[in-house]
Amino acid sequence: MSSECILVTGGAGFVGSHSVIELINAGYSVVVVDNFVNANHETMMRIGEICGTKITNYSIDLTNKSALHDLFSKHKFTSVIHTAGLKVIGESCDVPLLYYRVNVCGTINLIEVMKEHNVKNLIFSSSASVYGPPEYLPLDENHRTGRGVKPYGKTKQCMEELFKDLCKAEQGWNIIILRYFNVAGAHQSGKIGDNTQGPPAYLISYCAQVAAGKRSEVVIYGNDFDTHDGTGVRDYVHVVDLAYAHVLAQKQLEKECGLRVKYRIADRRPEDIGSFYCKPDLALEELGWKATKGLNEMCDDLWRWQSRNTDSSPLS
Amino acid sequence: MSSECILVTGGAGFVGSHSVIELINAGYSVVVVDNFVNANHETMMRIGEICGTKITNYSIDLTNKSALHDLFSKHKFTSVIHTAGLKVIGESCDVPLLYYRVNVCGTINLIEVMKEHNVKNLIFSSSASVYGPPEYLPLDENHRTGRGVKPYGKTKQCMEELFKDLCKAEQGWNIIILRYFNVAGAHQSGKIGDNTQGPPAYLISYCAQVAAGKRSEVVIYGNDFDTHDGTGVRDYVHVVDLAYAHVLAQKQLEKECGLRVKYRIADRRPEDIGSFYCKPDLALEELGWKATKGLNEMCDDLWRWQSRNTDSSPLS
Repeated sequence: MSSECILVTGGAGFVGSHSVIELINAGYSVVVVDNFVNANHETMMRIGEICGTKITNYSIDLTNKSALHDLFSKHKFTSVIHTAGLKVIGESCDVPLLYYRVNVCGTINLIEVMKEHNVKNLIFSSSASVYGPPEYLPLDENHRTGRGVKPYGKTKQCMEELFKDLCKAEQGWNIIILRYFNVAGAHQSGKIGDNTQGPPAYLISYCAQVAAGKRSEVVIYGNDFDTHDGTGVRDYVHVVDLAYAHVLAQKQLEKECGLRVKYRIADRRPEDIGSFYCKPDLALEELGWKATKGLNEMCDDLWRWQSRNTDSSPLS
Repeated sequence: MSSECILVTGGAGFVGSHSVIELINAGYSVVVVDNFVNANHETMMRIGEICGTKITNYSIDLTNKSALHDLFSKHKFTSVIHTAGLKVIGESCDVPLLYYRVNVCGTINLIEVMKEHNVKNLIFSSSASVYGPPEYLPLDENHRTGRGVKPYGKTKQCMEELFKDLCKAEQGWNIIILRYFNVAGAHQSGKIGDNTQGPPAYLISYCAQVAAGKRSEVVIYGNDFDTHDGTGVRDYVHVVDLAYAHVLAQKQLEKECGLRVKYRIADRRPEDIGSFYCKPDLALEELGWKATKGLNEMCDDLWRWQSRNTDSSPLS
């Protein structure tokens, strides 16, 4: 059994990979699991280059509980940062059963194995999707949840509920839920970024792919919302800022690309929301976390990565 | 492969067993699966006696997906009546992870196997627990859901959401959700009834067990609610009426024991609700279902069964 370390599930994914780097920068030992469906091994190599150390990683799907058991027998984890999961809202409407299988049953497998191995510290990647239509803006943690209408958000909601129930029922669990809003940017090295297959889940990544010629145009769904220019209002967080929130959360368990992008206005999609952004004060209060990188830095870093990885196939 | 039949999961349980009888009375062929954790094989024998035919049944836990696969390869199911699941609200607060595993992952297994075998007709046992504190009374299907605070209700809610998402995403599914309120009574033969291990989930069954000397007293949680006598107000449906609702749902896919029961007033339990009862008009409108058995008949039938099965161990 090796020495103490943190398990990052989905550690080769967009948020996961950047979190791994920040954790290693902060002096933690990290082990990654990923099913490498929406990520690839090249990312792990590049993280290694950035950090100057090889990252132990396993190709495991969380729906495979016995593989998880073996992993927990091999390593002594102090905590788990659980970023693994399917995350494309539109796709979740097309294949909801798959989203429940992966995001719900996969997480239940993970929690059961953690419990059996007495690992009870967890940082969970939840989503703004749990809020549903905002009753006030900016959104904060006092806003009620459970009104999301898309399967993706419902799977996150269901797991948030499990965690609340679990912490109420059993001693020893420490669970921090982070609700991501829109994530953008890329690592400043330009070596890793949003490598999701299919259409990117995040608008700014989508713009960057159009700018890089990977996609033909950005589609803007609706310009008749009740907002200053009629299009949707969102907020964005730099992926490196978000990654660092995981370091702070961990400590707490123990914290413009310059091109014109072609776009087209299309009809609103069903149930789309005009404005949707948050007030991250609680994260400052409880974790001491606050975004340091603005929209410019998000776009600079994203573009550095995107312009160096313009082939239409995923990194390989 | 045998001829067409209906699969009843949890068919040896309280609602399941009575539903099997009504289905057979209505001329259907039925196959039962049950894990026999909260039910027993004697019940299957007794159903056979009541119906004059042996019921094919399998001891399978829905968390065992490969066993489900085998079952679906062996029989040609036209539809599934899914009553299996853990159902004790209080227990769900103590062991939430188990409730999510069984009620959520077990159901997801079932749905996946149904889909693979192209069986897409489902009648699902949901619960009044999905409503949470009522915003008006009597409750009906227009009342919003998703505000239940107990793990049991949350697992039902999560599956209701999956079914809505699934029907939206995929052609061919026909899913009827029945939200049970409080179930009481027993089969009029006195041969089968609520045989749940541990404290009964339903108050009237609890009273019957006290009357039969199996338990020492009925505990009434709170007499300071804003109701006519200060105690909680609920409605009750006879299990045979409820069972018959399954027959009607299937077609659409195509009282007092005479003893004084000792009781004790205790403090309200956290989050208990004063009044909570429903308006079953939609079931009349859509299924032509309406209760025919009142409180007297519920108690008569329950007592017939309870007084013949007074030993403290389950039927054996």
